[in-house]
Amino acid sequence: MTDTAIERQTRLIQAVRTALGEKAVVTDPDDIAPWLDDWRGRYHGASAAILSPDTTEGVATIVRLAGEFGVPLVPQGGNTSMVGGATPPADGSALILSLRRMNRIRSINPAAKLAVVEAGVILETLHDAVNAQGMRFPLTLGARGSATIGGLTATNAGGTQVLRFGTMRSLVAGIEAVLPDGAIHDGLAALKKDNRGYDLTHLLVGAEGTLGVVTAVTLRLVPAVHDRATGWLAVESPAAALKALRVMEARSGSAIESFELVPKIALDLVLQHIPGTRPPFAGAHSWLVLVDYVSQSGGDGPAQAALEDLMQGVLATGLAQDGVVAASEAQAAAFWRLRDSISEAERAEGPTMAHDISVPVDAMPDFMLHAAAQVEAAFPGVHASAFGHLGDGNVHFHVNAPRGVDAARWRAEVGEPASHMVYDLVVAAGGSISAEHGIGQMKRGELARLSSPARMAALRAIKTGLDPHGLMNPGKLLALAESPSAP
Amino acid sequence: MTDTAIERQTRLIQAVRTALGEKAVVTDPDDIAPWLDDWRGRYHGASAAILSPDTTEGVATIVRLAGEFGVPLVPQGGNTSMVGGATPPADGSALILSLRRMNRIRSINPAAKLAVVEAGVILETLHDAVNAQGMRFPLTLGARGSATIGGLTATNAGGTQVLRFGTMRSLVAGIEAVLPDGAIHDGLAALKKDNRGYDLTHLLVGAEGTLGVVTAVTLRLVPAVHDRATGWLAVESPAAALKALRVMEARSGSAIESFELVPKIALDLVLQHIPGTRPPFAGAHSWLVLVDYVSQSGGDGPAQAALEDLMQGVLATGLAQDGVVAASEAQAAAFWRLRDSISEAERAEGPTMAHDISVPVDAMPDFMLHAAAQVEAAFPGVHASAFGHLGDGNVHFHVNAPRGVDAARWRAEVGEPASHMVYDLVVAAGGSISAEHGIGQMKRGELARLSSPARMAALRAIKTGLDPHGLMNPGKLLALAESPSAP
Repeated sequence: MTDTAIERQTRLIQAVRTALGEKAVVTDPDDIAPWLDDWRGRYHGASAAILSPDTTEGVATIVRLAGEFGVPLVPQGGNTSMVGGATPPADGSALILSLRRMNRIRSINPAAKLAVVEAGVILETLHDAVNAQGMRFPLTLGARGSATIGGLTATNAGGTQVLRFGTMRSLVAGIEAVLPDGAIHDGLAALKKDNRGYDLTHLLVGAEGTLGVVTAVTLRLVPAVHDRATGWLAVESPAAALKALRVMEARSGSAIESFELVPKIALDLVLQHIPGTRPPFAGAHSWLVLVDYVSQSGGDGPAQAALEDLMQGVLATGLAQDGVVAASEAQAAAFWRLRDSISEAERAEGPTMAHDISVPVDAMPDFMLHAAAQVEAAFPGVHASAFGHLGDGNVHFHVNAPRGVDAARWRAEVGEPASHMVYDLVVAAGGSISAEHGIGQMKRGELARLSSPARMAALRAIKTGLDPHGLMNPGKLLALAESPSAP
Repeated sequence: MTDTAIERQTRLIQAVRTALGEKAVVTDPDDIAPWLDDWRGRYHGASAAILSPDTTEGVATIVRLAGEFGVPLVPQGGNTSMVGGATPPADGSALILSLRRMNRIRSINPAAKLAVVEAGVILETLHDAVNAQGMRFPLTLGARGSATIGGLTATNAGGTQVLRFGTMRSLVAGIEAVLPDGAIHDGLAALKKDNRGYDLTHLLVGAEGTLGVVTAVTLRLVPAVHDRATGWLAVESPAAALKALRVMEARSGSAIESFELVPKIALDLVLQHIPGTRPPFAGAHSWLVLVDYVSQSGGDGPAQAALEDLMQGVLATGLAQDGVVAASEAQAAAFWRLRDSISEAERAEGPTMAHDISVPVDAMPDFMLHAAAQVEAAFPGVHASAFGHLGDGNVHFHVNAPRGVDAARWRAEVGEPASHMVYDLVVAAGGSISAEHGIGQMKRGELARLSSPARMAALRAIKTGLDPHGLMNPGKLLALAESPSAP
């Protein structure tokens, strides 16, 4: 940072204090420290202040002032990005713009099935508020106690329950955002049809804060869960699992909300490393699937019986070898714990390279097996496996180190080249190197390496058009040629 | 047109001829003439040639050459725009880029429920091809015999059957386009999850050809119609109609695919002006609703009986006063003819100002009545009424002249000011001045007048970023400050 840059930041901080008051500015290093690193501990940022407005107008004021002083801003919600998307640059050149004080649920309208929610509202808080009104916001994920609606929107988050209602993109019916020039875009009205030019809602969803700051969204709600059942299915292959899903969907419409594929190796690691876990089946099976059945109306009887019936149907076809449905909520929670503990168990075992990838749904079973075989052949000693959202064509493809290696050295010498190979295979299969986590800092290089020149040119043209000075979440998604310039 | 501009066009035409052959260039004025006016006869364009490639590479060549020579291009499919979106400028400054020779259905995959379709394929052709494979492409509209997939995509078309499966935006799973710099963006892979930066598919859908040329799309298919039934419901108000829809939806899931509201005045005009039409009910009713019930699996029995049952349920609640279900396909077609003839009947009666508008669904019944009352009070003698897609929050709000007025004078003195008032009321209600027809030339001024500065600045920034020389469909959607400049 040059002296001029530091002076510009100082003047911005003072101007924000004057405009929005003391509460909107945090400069105590102890208060800032927890928000400087990503939660995986891979990226370490620096920031002289956290700017923390509590109204949309406050956000607009800050963005406008930041433009005047030429200071980049890093929007931040719960700081739960898996790709370093909310961590400020290490050189201290940017300030954090926290949305956490914008935490009002402006309205919940059960009749219209809509809620208007500010960016700083935590997902779990929204779940509870909506449930209290007899409705449900269906998207959920492990970080629901920290992740905010703004971050989930800006990253088009997915999760374990996307099959029926889709990712955030499908659930956002309208958006309010402060654009890079400081103007407030009010697109909250939930219109089923609207052809007034380029779709700004879809542009801002998934833009990772690089085209403006999401301040509030109108979210679609669905009927509350009437009854739910959770079970495990044992299958011989990913292909059999996908066929079993199709059979169950054909019989139950859209009641299957989760369909999470888990390989034996991942389950074994969980059983070994996570205290209190128990295997769902007595016998050993190559692949398991965690299935969630959700009844919205009760018209199809108790969920447990319905899921058992569906599983019987699949067992009768020979597509599955065993099935078990949780007899209680506690057992269902224990089933889910097995699935949710995979990453933790892998970390306990040794270094892992994780890849959040997608290919067309029907191509995923073959892809999983062939890609794993190719990676294991190319890097002897590693073990490759994939788990996750098979019905979405999205799995977390992990490459695990052999036991006892030096983590840092393995990552550099084997992990990184193996990652390149995984992404190359994904691109060759017409897939995406980021299915649900976004690009952030972590995948920026791979995005540039593996995207067509046409796509990269289009992304850069959009970024440059809307944020010509590169002040919005710099260094995320795209690397622009120059460091930000003062206007 | 300056001599230089004419010379640039001449050189471009010659270069395209050289690169793509004689078939790709039409210069005979008689062959060009039918494509110079919009089908409503409101806009009259001029163009020295129609460039007509038959491959994506051919489109890319033309766009690249047009960039080199600084000649604007107007992409055109079936030329069925309702807003002059495919008509070239009257000064002859642009050439038409016809996609009609790009008319291959590249693949239909019933298992994956996807089809890959080139831009020039006519909607009806796609319907037939998909039906032959036991599937259905659900979007349909009056111009299905002329409208092309590329145009439908570029304008995010709607139609009479949007309730269940949405507009084109919901049905496009992937896109291939030539961007303004001539690069081919291949985004055809249908990924359920893809977070690789700004969503180019959603940006190009509805961009009206101003950000590039759609050359092919991957479309979502749905199961073929197992059984279908069509009926009329008589209700006392739009509010009662919307309540009736909610009751029927709660009982039938998503089997109601069309729910078209028709006021008595519109029906009377049809009965008066369209030969061979007959009223659906013996008595007179203020409002009618045309209902289409589509069974995909047959699990709910014959569609006719199911729709009759639903109507009985609504009649029992008092929300409707009468109901009738077509007893044959011929009768169903006659029912639909009443709905589809409204615009034609209104034209026969006298001048009409038509407005394709939307507001939030729940607000539409009140809006229709209040807006009509306000317009009629402000412009004595006119009659205002709305018909159409009530369940989408989208109606066609028409202001009809009194009999015997001079059409041109009425339009200028009453019609235009009345239109301004309608759009002002729509904006005050948080709605959209273009629900499904787009902006084109016709609504460009109103878009600029009624959009927030934030929205207009964002639209212009995107346009300028991606098409800096303004060569893609100039004068549509946005007026850029300058005429296109040669690079």
